[in-house]
Amino acid sequence: MIKPSLPRGTRDYSPAVMVKRNLILNTIKSTFEKFGFLPLETPAMENLSVLTGKYGDEGDKLLFKVLNSGNYLNKIDEKERQTLDSNALSQKISEKGLKYDLTVPFARYVVMNRNEIVLPFKRYQVQPVWRADRPQKGRYREFYQCDADVIGTKSLICEAEIALMVHEVFSLLGLNDYVLKFNSRKILEGIIDVSGESEKSEVFFVILDKLDKIGLNSVIHELEGQGFSNSFIEKVSLIIRTSGTNKVKLDIIKPILKDSKIGVEGIGEIESVIGFVNSLAGEMSEIEFDLTLARGLSYYTGIIFEARAINVKIGSIGGGGRYDNLTGVFGWPDLSGVGFSFGIDRIFDVMEELKLFDSQKTGSTQVLITNFDSNAEKFALRMLSKLRESEIKAEIFPDNVKLKKQLNYANKKNIPYVLMIGSEELKKGIFTLKDMVTGTQEELSIHKVIEKISDSN
Amino acid sequence: MIKPSLPRGTRDYSPAVMVKRNLILNTIKSTFEKFGFLPLETPAMENLSVLTGKYGDEGDKLLFKVLNSGNYLNKIDEKERQTLDSNALSQKISEKGLKYDLTVPFARYVVMNRNEIVLPFKRYQVQPVWRADRPQKGRYREFYQCDADVIGTKSLICEAEIALMVHEVFSLLGLNDYVLKFNSRKILEGIIDVSGESEKSEVFFVILDKLDKIGLNSVIHELEGQGFSNSFIEKVSLIIRTSGTNKVKLDIIKPILKDSKIGVEGIGEIESVIGFVNSLAGEMSEIEFDLTLARGLSYYTGIIFEARAINVKIGSIGGGGRYDNLTGVFGWPDLSGVGFSFGIDRIFDVMEELKLFDSQKTGSTQVLITNFDSNAEKFALRMLSKLRESEIKAEIFPDNVKLKKQLNYANKKNIPYVLMIGSEELKKGIFTLKDMVTGTQEELSIHKVIEKISDSN
Repeated sequence: MIKPSLPRGTRDYSPAVMVKRNLILNTIKSTFEKFGFLPLETPAMENLSVLTGKYGDEGDKLLFKVLNSGNYLNKIDEKERQTLDSNALSQKISEKGLKYDLTVPFARYVVMNRNEIVLPFKRYQVQPVWRADRPQKGRYREFYQCDADVIGTKSLICEAEIALMVHEVFSLLGLNDYVLKFNSRKILEGIIDVSGESEKSEVFFVILDKLDKIGLNSVIHELEGQGFSNSFIEKVSLIIRTSGTNKVKLDIIKPILKDSKIGVEGIGEIESVIGFVNSLAGEMSEIEFDLTLARGLSYYTGIIFEARAINVKIGSIGGGGRYDNLTGVFGWPDLSGVGFSFGIDRIFDVMEELKLFDSQKTGSTQVLITNFDSNAEKFALRMLSKLRESEIKAEIFPDNVKLKKQLNYANKKNIPYVLMIGSEELKKGIFTLKDMVTGTQEELSIHKVIEKISDSN
Repeated sequence: MIKPSLPRGTRDYSPAVMVKRNLILNTIKSTFEKFGFLPLETPAMENLSVLTGKYGDEGDKLLFKVLNSGNYLNKIDEKERQTLDSNALSQKISEKGLKYDLTVPFARYVVMNRNEIVLPFKRYQVQPVWRADRPQKGRYREFYQCDADVIGTKSLICEAEIALMVHEVFSLLGLNDYVLKFNSRKILEGIIDVSGESEKSEVFFVILDKLDKIGLNSVIHELEGQGFSNSFIEKVSLIIRTSGTNKVKLDIIKPILKDSKIGVEGIGEIESVIGFVNSLAGEMSEIEFDLTLARGLSYYTGIIFEARAINVKIGSIGGGGRYDNLTGVFGWPDLSGVGFSFGIDRIFDVMEELKLFDSQKTGSTQVLITNFDSNAEKFALRMLSKLRESEIKAEIFPDNVKLKKQLNYANKKNIPYVLMIGSEELKKGIFTLKDMVTGTQEELSIHKVIEKISDSN
């Protein structure tokens, strides 16, 4: 006998978890579609030639590699086998890996299908990715990403639409206490620019990105350590300390950046996005221009986003931004786009913590018909079909066992109603409907039963 | 520059394909839920100890194995490295594999969660699986399976419910010309039984399963080759030649099996299932008792199913059956269940061939707003939000380019309506709505536009 087990860092999604996850994922997907994004799926496995070198040296180490099939050792002679280390051997016996994110496979898809795709191309993708990270609380080796991107246009309407899309998803989920922070990499570049610190933007972004974790003093300390000038550090301190409305922040940053072409451009873009959002939705109090937002990823070049839940200590629940060179590595340079990614696991945790899952919407079966005796069974089956014809999710307990066991089943499965059909009920044509939440019972005709269950949803 | 490519036997699902696939998958999933099945997901990777030995020697060879992370060669000394063949090496450097089907991971899940699960347990699972088969037309190395199973009950109501569920899925998809064949392994065992051919049932099932491909004569020839008796072969010929209603077939097989306990049991079960189906739905002309149905898989023990499209040469589009020992190999013996699996790729092909995809339902965006000038843009954005508030899937062309290009975009993306908003329209408050299918244009108020698009869906 084999003791069954799960690979480290992976998990099963039980039905109780799945119905909640599906509520989130279906909300995200239908909103993506409402905004004109269409679904795409790429395989779990990609050629390693596509994946390697895209995520830095650390990322390469975290790729799950798939062994070649058949007698893969045939091609390596015995002497070579002795000298190879794990890394060198992997390159000879493995050609495929599990995808590490959705972005690189998307870029690969776009280039492979450049003749069919019509730009701008709006796609969304909701699929698992794999990373051979050390598993720890909240960090898994297989997890879902939910990305939407539009490529082939530089229009800032796209950025504004992302703000609206984020708003719609969180509203539908009842997650109203959130903030969507945004900034422009160009503004951060501008600060570098006017301080004569060119070539150091990467280092700056990485340090600034740690602000939330390490605080202002440590950020300054690290900048000093990296040899940034006092005048630069002063400007950074100023923007970190700045609070107030989006307009207040713009008024503070404008004079600082007035001599930087890229800085002025960044400010103009922030103003445009705010203008487009206003046209689309009026004032949106959830969007917050945040001069300290940097985002970790190196490929962002314009507006960047980060969504956070308020009152829950859980970090970012989504993020994204504009990039200017998605597909260059595959031979299609200068393709600009902007995307956003929802953090499904984090959103799930926030909704659990704030008790936002409505049991009515996340339970699946709405009514269980009990099974008393073979006499009533026939009739019960007919009623079962009737309920389903009215689009009610219904099931019958398949075996003729004690009522207690059947009620326990309904309870465990979170089924809100139990309909009792025995010989007695059969004769009268009136059935007992038990509300499993309140425990009350009512005698009703099948017509009233259908009405009641339909209304409760 | 890296030339992007896909691993052999894998495929991208483009948006055009995805919207059709989602139509099928969403129909299957919502029907599963209507019948009380709840979703489950298991990881792509399983420990090889869980997978190996479950699919026969051939199956073991088709498992995709994932390389261990880090310096996996450390544990193998140099001498050993020289002597190992690919197979022996794999066992030392790979502990995980990609799942080969959904059934074994389901069994693993059930045993690992036996204390939380309440029986009967009804779950569905729609996920990709991987097989290192030689790729060929219609055979992929990554493909989706869509399974629903109920375990922990022997009630034949479950079998009847499967027939109803299959009916509901195909009706909703407009795939009305299908037949759901069913039989009982016990009836086939009964024929073996009364012919004194015990211990040979496996061989018999495999040969009978080839009937469609090789025909009656070859089946007889192969049975002779395997040493089956003449009296047995006569009975098999008789049941293969039998046609007519379910009742006619029952009348023919009953006297043959009257002395076989298992055979009589099988007939009783067929009659029960037909009875339950009648109670649930009345006469269902699509269900066909087929004495020659055998199904390939060895673990079936009771009723078996196979769905086929009529008038399309494409083989089975779904199948399933009852098994008596799902979890025995993981230490939980005698757990009975019954399941059904829809063949999503085949159903897709049938629906394409019969032109059953309704472009209205599979297109995504319903209306594109054109982008003429920055004057009208603001207003256009407000209209965009108005459309979405009415639950219309809408997008705006993000750039101010030639109308022809914008119309081409709508055409390529299968968007049925284009709404033109320029300075002229803005002044009049009347917009031009172009029907992209007929090419006609109408001048309408925004109110009428919303009405028209909503009605067309």
